[in-house]
Order: sequence, then structure tokens, then C-alpha cells
Amino acid sequence: MRSHTVYLTMNVPARMDFVNITRDVEKVVAASGVKEGLCLVNAMHITASVFINDDEPGLHEDYDRWLEELAPHEPISRYKHNRTGEDNGDAHLKRKVMGREVVVTVTGGKHDFGPWEQIFYGEFDGRRKKRVLVKIIGE
Amino acid sequence: MRSHTVYLTMNVPARMDFVNITRDVEKVVAASGVKEGLCLVNAMHITASVFINDDEPGLHEDYDRWLEELAPHEPISRYKHNRTGEDNGDAHLKRKVMGREVVVTVTGGKHDFGPWEQIFYGEFDGRRKKRVLVKIIGE
Amino acid sequence: MRSHTVYLTMNVPARMDFVNITRDVEKVVAASGVKEGLCLVNAMHITASVFINDDEPGLHEDYDRWLEELAPHEPISRYKHNRTGEDNGDAHLKRKVMGREVVVTVTGGKHDFGPWEQIFYGEFDGRRKKRVLVKIIGE
Repeated sequence: MRSHTVYLTMNVPARMDFVNITRDVEKVVAASGVKEGLCLVNAMHITASVFINDDEPGLHEDYDRWLEELAPHEPISRYKHNRTGEDNGDAHLKRKVMGREVVVTVTGGKHDFGPWEQIFYGEFDGRRKKRVLVKIIGE
Repeated sequence: MRSHTVYLTMNVPARMDFVNITRDVEKVVAASGVKEGLCLVNAMHITASVFINDDEPGLHEDYDRWLEELAPHEPISRYKHNRTGEDNGDAHLKRKVMGREVVVTVTGGKHDFGPWEQIFYGEFDGRRKKRVLVKIIGE
Repeated sequence: MRSHTVYLTMNVPARMDFVNITRDVEKVVAASGVKEGLCLVNAMHITASVFINDDEPGLHEDYDRWLEELAPHEPISRYKHNRTGEDNGDAHLKRKVMGREVVVTVTGGKHDFGPWEQIFYGEFDGRRKKRVLVKIIGE
């Protein structure tokens, strides 16, 4: 069994944004030498997500608005978590909706994606460095 | 290490519905010859889900109503994604709530499920063919 | 390839609560002898979750309140699932928001977590015994 682990560094200038990391993950798969296996991609921070959906700007605006309705950033006092001095209570909830991780296949040395599947990093408390973990196991 | 990959074809006549695919996935596990491993089951389309819950019709009606409250299908103009000519903006949000994938164990050559766990395909933009990927790795 | 499977027994006295199971899962990883691999942790019951977030009491209060807003426990008659004689219709929805499972890495014989990542069991219909499955595959 082979395994291969890489950390991607993210640095999103906005508080909330989505970044397509499909190419970065594909490079890790190619470098791993794994032909058949599974690949885990997860946010290592608890106010960020990794998820799969479409790379379409209108959809990302829909996600923004929807997440803000489900878990508004303001008022800050809305969240007991913010009593710790943080202002990211909403980000912990938004990340639950969008998810922490995806598990994707490696088949014939490549991702085995449907026609529109793209891997995104979802940032909900940005303006600082965070990491994404990519780990592949297989043969 | 063994690996085994199968694609299930789904064709749901309604816009939104849930289909129990547990037996289909069990057949893939049996055919794989894997005794100990992990099994990924994911929707290959971004307006569909794979998730685990109870096969109880009342619960599925509850999911229907709840998802429609969280992300109404209409008005179509509610979603910027629909400016592309699609009418499935809501389906991209519903799929986030219900999830893209499940990872389940293979133990002693079988799924190792709790008493009520059943695997479902969740369709949010049906009336066309879509695929579900099942991949097993192990020994 | 090695594999190692352990069942944790949970018995949460409240209807809804969150329990930090990080140490329990770490013990399973250590006992497995796996140095490089993947670890699946999933609730075996469909009204419970396994998820990763921060061990901060204010945040857990925020999750409580938010989940109760998204899927209120009462009135019981709100959920068609409760026609079966159950009163846990809400728990099946709450569990969807919080998720069934996490997949985490094993790197150098340990979890490879970000600074605040902790594994939680989320109970939404407690006051009885339930199980969590931990399975590790790797080498």
C-alpha cells in the first residue's frame, strides 16, 4: 500500500469566499503514484470547508446569501461562542452546512469525477493562513 | 490491496425523490471479494446526494418539506444560478444539506451497519439519468 | 494492509448533547498499529452524529439553539415520522445538518489534526445506549 500526504496553504483575503482547488488536488494525486485508491481532502481549520460542487459564480453568490440567512454574521452578540472574544460564531455553523471534508476516488491514476464535480475550499473566517490536508492511500 | 469500482445508473422520474440503494451497494461489496476495507458511495452529479438514514415514508415526507423550506424551488428567479438558464438552483443547496457521499465499512465481507442504517440516493433535479459511484478498497 | 475495528458505546443521559470522543478514537488508532492510513468514525444510529469542531461550551450552546431553530423538537405532530409512535422526527433532521461520519488521517501513527480539531459524538435522541464505529485501514 502507498500513502501520500500533502498540505495546501490557503490565504483568502475576504472573510467568506470559495476557492477551486481541483487542480492542486489533481497534482497531489499525480505525484502520489497511486493508481487505485481513495483520497481524503479536509479543511484542518474548523471555520472552513472542503466540498464538491459546480464552478459557477451565480451559484457561489447563492451559497453566500443562503449561508448568511442560515447563520448571519451579525449581530456578533448572537453567538455565545463570541463571548470568548472571537467574532466567528457564524463561521462554525456555516462550515457545518458546507462540510469539513470530501473523500474522492483515484481510478486509473486520476480522480473519477462526474461531469461538473469540482473541489472547493470554503472559507468562512478568512484573512489569515489556513491549511488543507490531502491524503491518498492505495496502490 | 484489492479495489473494485462500479457505477450505478439512476433515473428518477420525479424532480425530487429518495431511492434505497442498499441492496445495490451490498451486491458490489459481495462482488469485490473484499473482506476488510472501506467503501465510498458518492453521487457523481452535484444536484444529487448519497446519505444514510431510515427507510420510513413519513420521514421522507419530512425531508421533502424541510428541504423545500430551507431552499424553495420557486420562484426560480430566487437563485442567481438560474440566470444560466437552469431551474435547479435549489437543488444545489438541498444537496449540501443532504451530503454528497458516505463512507461505510466492509467487515467480514459485509457492511457493518447499525440497526436502521440504509443507504439512499437523494435526487433533487431528476427526470434524467445520473450515476452513483461505488468504490471499495481493502483485502 | 492492516485493519482494526472497534465499537464505542455511548449512553447520553440528555435528549441532545455533544460528547468529545477524541481520546477514545486516539486509543483505537494507537492499538491498531497502523502508521499510515485512513480512519472512519461513524454513528451507527440515525439520530446521532459524529463531527469535528471546537471543544468550546459557548459554541455547543450555539449549535443547540441553531439546530432547534432549524428542526424544532415540538410540536411532535410537526413530523410525519412521529406518526410511527416515535417522537424523534426532529433528531433525524438535526443529524443531517451535523453529519453521520468523519474520515480522518493516520500519519506517523497518529491523527493529523489542525490546531482546534476535536471529534464529537452528537446525540439528538439520547437516554439510551448507542454505538459509534471506528475503523482504521492502512499499514
